[in-house]
Amino acid sequence: MSKQALPIVDLAGTGETGQVCCAPLACEPLNAVEAEELAPLFKAIADPVRLRLLSLIACHEGGEACVCDLTGAFELTGPTISHHLKVLRQAGLIDCERRGTWVYYWVNPGVLARLSAILGPRMPAMA
Amino acid sequence: MSKQALPIVDLAGTGETGQVCCAPLACEPLNAVEAEELAPLFKAIADPVRLRLLSLIACHEGGEACVCDLTGAFELTGPTISHHLKVLRQAGLIDCERRGTWVYYWVNPGVLARLSAILGPRMPAMA
Repeated sequence: MSKQALPIVDLAGTGETGQVCCAPLACEPLNAVEAEELAPLFKAIADPVRLRLLSLIACHEGGEACVCDLTGAFELTGPTISHHLKVLRQAGLIDCERRGTWVYYWVNPGVLARLSAILGPRMPAMA
Repeated sequence: MSKQALPIVDLAGTGETGQVCCAPLACEPLNAVEAEELAPLFKAIADPVRLRLLSLIACHEGGEACVCDLTGAFELTGPTISHHLKVLRQAGLIDCERRGTWVYYWVNPGVLARLSAILGPRMPAMA
């Protein structure tokens, strides 16, 4: 992320506390800056393989998944899976760490929570 | 939508009652059918103009907006706005009706709620 000082838009700030920082799009019109920032996040998940990868990682025991756990779910080559993981990582939806032979991935819950809140009902905390 | 008989995936069924029908992606892995169906919806909103259009429509007084209320928010031609509205409509995110001179748009809240729930925290109803 090269964006700086966007007071309303806090990509990672919602996950830690469980609070929802952003007005859902049905509450007040998204401004151009927010829309430009959100669109690439939705683009990153606008692919069936990436959606399934994100879900597999999020569901995985302990909240993280070895790349070796992910490739078996698809009839795709390792480099293709790696490409999709890179797109998710570059968007900030997942993060990873190499440990020995394998790379381990986990979801950034704040980013997912933000996307969910943006699309959610008027009151994210439910009335 | 040409998909038929998908018992889990109910594009429009969540908005009427406020219930969330779908397991969020962090609860159980998305299957290939769900992922193939969700990806085009995310693709439809993976564009800053379409995100803003969706938000403008959702926020508009009375829950619907005349196309004449939307074009002024953008430095884009009418046909370009119409194209983006068509993409949103074809994805099922919005619907429209012509009344006299103008076309009026409204959001399909069930589809938005479904996307929100898919990305949401483990317990959509909040613990």
